[in-house]
Amino acid sequence: MSNQTAPSARTRVRRVPNRGRYDLEFIYAVLDEALVCHVGFVSSGQPFVMPTLCVRIASELFIHGASTSRLIEHAASGEPLCITITLVDGVVLARSAFHHSLNYRSVVVLGQARLVSDPLEKEQVSTALVERVAPGRSWLVRAPNQLELKATSVLGVPLTESSAKVRTGGPIDDEEDLAWPVWAGVIPLRLEPQAPEVAEPQCPGATVPRLGRGLNR
Amino acid sequence: MSNQTAPSARTRVRRVPNRGRYDLEFIYAVLDEALVCHVGFVSSGQPFVMPTLCVRIASELFIHGASTSRLIEHAASGEPLCITITLVDGVVLARSAFHHSLNYRSVVVLGQARLVSDPLEKEQVSTALVERVAPGRSWLVRAPNQLELKATSVLGVPLTESSAKVRTGGPIDDEEDLAWPVWAGVIPLRLEPQAPEVAEPQCPGATVPRLGRGLNR
Repeated sequence: MSNQTAPSARTRVRRVPNRGRYDLEFIYAVLDEALVCHVGFVSSGQPFVMPTLCVRIASELFIHGASTSRLIEHAASGEPLCITITLVDGVVLARSAFHHSLNYRSVVVLGQARLVSDPLEKEQVSTALVERVAPGRSWLVRAPNQLELKATSVLGVPLTESSAKVRTGGPIDDEEDLAWPVWAGVIPLRLEPQAPEVAEPQCPGATVPRLGRGLNR
Repeated sequence: MSNQTAPSARTRVRRVPNRGRYDLEFIYAVLDEALVCHVGFVSSGQPFVMPTLCVRIASELFIHGASTSRLIEHAASGEPLCITITLVDGVVLARSAFHHSLNYRSVVVLGQARLVSDPLEKEQVSTALVERVAPGRSWLVRAPNQLELKATSVLGVPLTESSAKVRTGGPIDDEEDLAWPVWAGVIPLRLEPQAPEVAEPQCPGATVPRLGRGLNR
């Protein structure tokens, strides 16, 4: 499955190397399906990992947050980051305890963030974040005003030093366990929308929006 | 909502402090519903964040992995870790772009791991990992042998320095936006099982197992 080389030694998949993928097409597809990423940064030698919404535009991954938040403060100062995105695709049920596994697609991005200071670009990213959640919605909602844009920091991280790891398919049991008397296979998992909860006051006749990639039935 | 104090300054929720929760009952409930955690560690000043299966037993969170993996190597050496667990509960669709949000429950655990070396305890954690995915299954599958247990490292991290952050409920729009002509509300999200994929050869008459907490319809 891995027909490319890693962009750096530190992003090379070492454990089960044939699960590594380094082609940007695959990496982008994983990022585009993810709603949330986990951002790692270091403060006084202690790692911190914070979840936040993300959106990819071209060859950058963007996050945003209150300018005063710990995550944004650290990320905006140019410190080294690790952003990890994980899609859990299913539970792999083997005949042996040891060969139980998960099917997943994950991406690890190493790099430094740049603070998006251009007001136009900042608006574009804010729009993309709304569009990622519900395509077309940015046209329907009240656009951000200057105060709101000022309170929010937007950060972009290049995807140049990134790698993906993927497991697909059924259980891989030892030959001698194949007749073990237990169900074996995969139960796929998907993030699925539930019945919408209407806010009050509701605009009469407004329709529930369709969500973005990976969030629909 | 927050009627307790954080166990340390560095786990105190600073941004929107009334979303912080420090009671272990709540923290444990989030951990017990999560399938995967994100483990952050530092290597030569660079943070790394890796996803892995987790299970809570009493006041510790356990992970496991190949003894040779980068994550396990770092974690087992007693370096400071941050383990973050995130449950995405829904998309919050406001009338203004700025007030869009996610409903979520997340937990951040700071600490050092201990390597579980006692063979009996190691087996207990391995059992708990299978049980977490599919309750009752550890009795049905072929138990791990000595070679398999040796190839796997099990690590426990105490939950003493941990905090949760939670957002629930509908959009919180500005008063002057409440009549904006767009649908507003929450679309809850849940990780849901899909049609099982049967592995071959399949044991005749074996039934598809019910999955653990947070993984069923």
